[in-house]
Amino acid sequence: MWADEIKRYDVRQLKQLAAQLREEMIGAVRENGGHLASNLGAVELILALYKAFDFPEDKLLFDVGHQAYAHKLLTGRSLSDLRKKGGASGFPDPEESEYDTFVAGHSGNSLAAGMGLCFARDLRGENYKVICLIGDASLANGMALEAIFASEQKPKNFIVVLNDNGMAIDKTNSALYRSLSKATARRCYRKFNAFLDKKLRTTSAFGRKLRRLKYTVKGWMNKNYFFERCGFKYVGPVDGHDLTELTGVLSELEKIEDPVLLHAITVKGKGFEEAEKDPTRYHGVGKNFAESENSFSVALGRLLSARAESDPSLVAVTAAMSDGVGLTEFSEKFPDRIMDAGICEEAAVTMAAGMARGGLSPVVCLYSTFLQRAFDQIVHDVCIPKLPVLFCIDRAGFVGADGKTHQGLLDISALRAVPNLNLFAPKDCAELSDVFDYARSKGLPAAIRYPNGYAPNLGGRYKISDYYLWETLSEGDGVVVLACGARAVARALEAKKIAGVANVQVVNCRSVMPLDTRLLDYFANRKIITFEEGYETGGFGAAVAEYYAQNNCTVRMKIIGAPRVFVPHATVSEQAQMYKLTAADLARKIQAFDSQP
Amino acid sequence: MWADEIKRYDVRQLKQLAAQLREEMIGAVRENGGHLASNLGAVELILALYKAFDFPEDKLLFDVGHQAYAHKLLTGRSLSDLRKKGGASGFPDPEESEYDTFVAGHSGNSLAAGMGLCFARDLRGENYKVICLIGDASLANGMALEAIFASEQKPKNFIVVLNDNGMAIDKTNSALYRSLSKATARRCYRKFNAFLDKKLRTTSAFGRKLRRLKYTVKGWMNKNYFFERCGFKYVGPVDGHDLTELTGVLSELEKIEDPVLLHAITVKGKGFEEAEKDPTRYHGVGKNFAESENSFSVALGRLLSARAESDPSLVAVTAAMSDGVGLTEFSEKFPDRIMDAGICEEAAVTMAAGMARGGLSPVVCLYSTFLQRAFDQIVHDVCIPKLPVLFCIDRAGFVGADGKTHQGLLDISALRAVPNLNLFAPKDCAELSDVFDYARSKGLPAAIRYPNGYAPNLGGRYKISDYYLWETLSEGDGVVVLACGARAVARALEAKKIAGVANVQVVNCRSVMPLDTRLLDYFANRKIITFEEGYETGGFGAAVAEYYAQNNCTVRMKIIGAPRVFVPHATVSEQAQMYKLTAADLARKIQAFDSQP
Repeated sequence: MWADEIKRYDVRQLKQLAAQLREEMIGAVRENGGHLASNLGAVELILALYKAFDFPEDKLLFDVGHQAYAHKLLTGRSLSDLRKKGGASGFPDPEESEYDTFVAGHSGNSLAAGMGLCFARDLRGENYKVICLIGDASLANGMALEAIFASEQKPKNFIVVLNDNGMAIDKTNSALYRSLSKATARRCYRKFNAFLDKKLRTTSAFGRKLRRLKYTVKGWMNKNYFFERCGFKYVGPVDGHDLTELTGVLSELEKIEDPVLLHAITVKGKGFEEAEKDPTRYHGVGKNFAESENSFSVALGRLLSARAESDPSLVAVTAAMSDGVGLTEFSEKFPDRIMDAGICEEAAVTMAAGMARGGLSPVVCLYSTFLQRAFDQIVHDVCIPKLPVLFCIDRAGFVGADGKTHQGLLDISALRAVPNLNLFAPKDCAELSDVFDYARSKGLPAAIRYPNGYAPNLGGRYKISDYYLWETLSEGDGVVVLACGARAVARALEAKKIAGVANVQVVNCRSVMPLDTRLLDYFANRKIITFEEGYETGGFGAAVAEYYAQNNCTVRMKIIGAPRVFVPHATVSEQAQMYKLTAADLARKIQAFDSQP
Repeated sequence: MWADEIKRYDVRQLKQLAAQLREEMIGAVRENGGHLASNLGAVELILALYKAFDFPEDKLLFDVGHQAYAHKLLTGRSLSDLRKKGGASGFPDPEESEYDTFVAGHSGNSLAAGMGLCFARDLRGENYKVICLIGDASLANGMALEAIFASEQKPKNFIVVLNDNGMAIDKTNSALYRSLSKATARRCYRKFNAFLDKKLRTTSAFGRKLRRLKYTVKGWMNKNYFFERCGFKYVGPVDGHDLTELTGVLSELEKIEDPVLLHAITVKGKGFEEAEKDPTRYHGVGKNFAESENSFSVALGRLLSARAESDPSLVAVTAAMSDGVGLTEFSEKFPDRIMDAGICEEAAVTMAAGMARGGLSPVVCLYSTFLQRAFDQIVHDVCIPKLPVLFCIDRAGFVGADGKTHQGLLDISALRAVPNLNLFAPKDCAELSDVFDYARSKGLPAAIRYPNGYAPNLGGRYKISDYYLWETLSEGDGVVVLACGARAVARALEAKKIAGVANVQVVNCRSVMPLDTRLLDYFANRKIITFEEGYETGGFGAAVAEYYAQNNCTVRMKIIGAPRVFVPHATVSEQAQMYKLTAADLARKIQAFDSQP
């Protein structure tokens, strides 16, 4: 394993290894999809860290995992089945390797987790280094800032490596970033710094004096007191691709106890020309770098642009996932009417609340997994004052290759109980448009959830005036399948074609909150199956069971959804297979239920 | 209404008014409880704001509402029925007054909301000022920091007034605060500043030049670039109790368009000697400043101290509510084993995850309403890696006088679906201890929820080995009442004493996740009522209904809990009456259900 050998490598060997790692990463992402640009930018940093520290005794925390591929390769994991079922996860995961200190699918957690780890280490009288590798975009996340400012006394043997590539997923317009870049732009300081760094590689008394001098000089040359005030010794900026410089600095840092922030400047996509030129495109890429066309994300983007033409009050809000949720075109057409808050889901939601208070009609576009981060803002800032904010929740349901940190299985159970909030799950992109208009017409908080990937048009659409009502897509006098959400509806229709269950009635339950209670009352004497891609616990089926119980109806029903587990990476259809949620599984379950007395 | 007249007041009259407001506030809090110290500290700031700006055309946002009492009095609200049913809320609420721009029960939202409001104003071509009044403790919250750093370009006509009293609810150890206080300590700067502020009151060309000079001088005299880098003109520090200075500065600020941060130094508890001396005690106070003794909070504190004696791995984590959750004694006895993260719920939870990863056994003590702010951290940082973090959720259920922003009604529905997390609701303080030990013995993520206030010992306690099992407290062959949580169990036992329902069976359902399914199977042929102080939607009753539906049992059951609405301030027992959740209500419902065929 490279992780064991790397301590003996010289800089020339490290450079060779860097080239080899890059080659494997580009090949793997071309094959399996994944995060390319940030991973390419972190190769030398990771090599230098492994050269200087003793992992896994020392602890390395990533923030986020977009930078961890080189680390995975060094610690014996293959990328050939990256993000595939049974293969390596796209993110660090302690269950996968003892080298993965902490889960790292959502941004901004490394500093708090690392400080907690230091707290434990010091209390237990242990002795290891804790190193957090954090990107400049993640640093702007509220939780990271909370940790940075938490105490002016930072733990000893705590090293934060800031991988500063000058851009978030989209673009960085943050005050934090500008603040950093001002510091790094000071040429005279950089030169002086480079000189000192060279000298500092000696460990003599002179070296130590120089180091002290360096800090002093930095104090008035580099006007960025940001990290020093927060209890870190600030070291840098260093060239994050210069292995000579990096290994030199890190071997120095390995010897001192002070909490340090090492500021490294890197190039996103480094070593792969296409990605260097267009890192946004290569941030997170699907298989063969292709993009799904007929998807809810694309449909939402078009819808927003279309509605924005006629409605000047419509504005879009997102949090560093503008491309992912389909807002690229909108942001070009209406640059003044989009707010991308960076990786700040909390501020994004509350800014939207403020916009609504100010008379606008904001649409907040977030992935289901990241919406979780603004749960209280939805409750406190949007739903208590009943502000007309519409949440468009992308990546709801199984998300496929991104795996357990990114699943969108919790939104129904979390949001269903929030007062004043309506929740929809349209069956296809055409219905998205109707539900979108309907939800906005109410002038109340609302959310629309839909899955990622290809979404077929399911037809059978009648324009109606009330989208709280459900839609029977296929009549039948057998079991009633109450299908909630695009994938569930599509699979239920497919299941009906399977021999033996042709008499099933398929209902598109596009409104989760409120439920279509008239229809539920009507079905009370039928056998009912609820079907959804979300946790069975507290989800749509639970809502139906709860309704009948509250109304003292004893119905024969069955809830089919995802079990209450964290679902690992695989394709979306493999995930459906793993938990018996395919059309064939549904058909079997319908038959079994139908044959019960 | 004072708000209309105040523009004509001179400084002498304002001072008189300040004294009058203080008197009313002290009287009201003595009578009704509430937040005293912070409100006393903000009187002059609020008076000066009303003198300088035109509310409600200009918009004033509080962060948090602990400072809003003077504002309530100025805008025609009486404090005589403060926090009582039908009286004024303890926090700003747009439903209560057009002067209350935004909901402000949870910290850190004002800046994002204010920036959203400015975005709306500018897009709609409107013209008003947006003013956020934020305390130094709130500023350390992640959402506030996200907004501060969100963009280097802050909106015009956006004024942030930092009410810096140098302490959070408990004490401030944050780097942010130290950073501020260093700046304010520079005497020569203060003197110079005071001189300039005097001159600046003239609006002549000379005054304008002086103003420019002031910014320049400040640039190198006051080394705190923090806010300037974030796009604010920094003005201050000013004495937040000097009405002459305040009205002068604010009338200047009213005339300029630049985004400004005004740094005001105030004294918490100002004008009330007892509160000035011990502001922590007078932060949030119950009626007559008394403290409830026989409560879960007190019991938890004792329990933690007791267990910490024998278990060196036990550590406590909280977020600026150390006293409220009962940790005062623990923090004195084990100062090295408590982490108070300030108003940073996200960082607190993830730090606890880090501690658990490092071999400790952290207990995170938070109010239910604030736990909502760390929902994703619970999912991503604690439950995915199955770390042994125990959440002790105080103020679960109705919270009484704090009202709708503080209700603890969402925790069951939000947490129940989170994989790997067990959830308990002990019936009394004695059982808290058993459940606490049991949950920790599993070495898995777990949460224990319990209400505030007086909690009687309900007896009937047998030490058993498995607290996933429920406990029948009173046998009977009539309706089975599955009561979940201390208040529900107490009321169910009380209901049983009421004529006509003596044959009811009362079960203490202390484990919400997992459910005691053996017992549920056993009761499948009985009439069942579930009873809880939480939302019916997605709560404990829903879990029971869901279990029976999933297992194809058709049971006769009824779910009794709080309806899905935001519950306004009143006493806890009034809140139970409002939603028909008293013992008498339960008895009536049992009778009605029992008499059904």
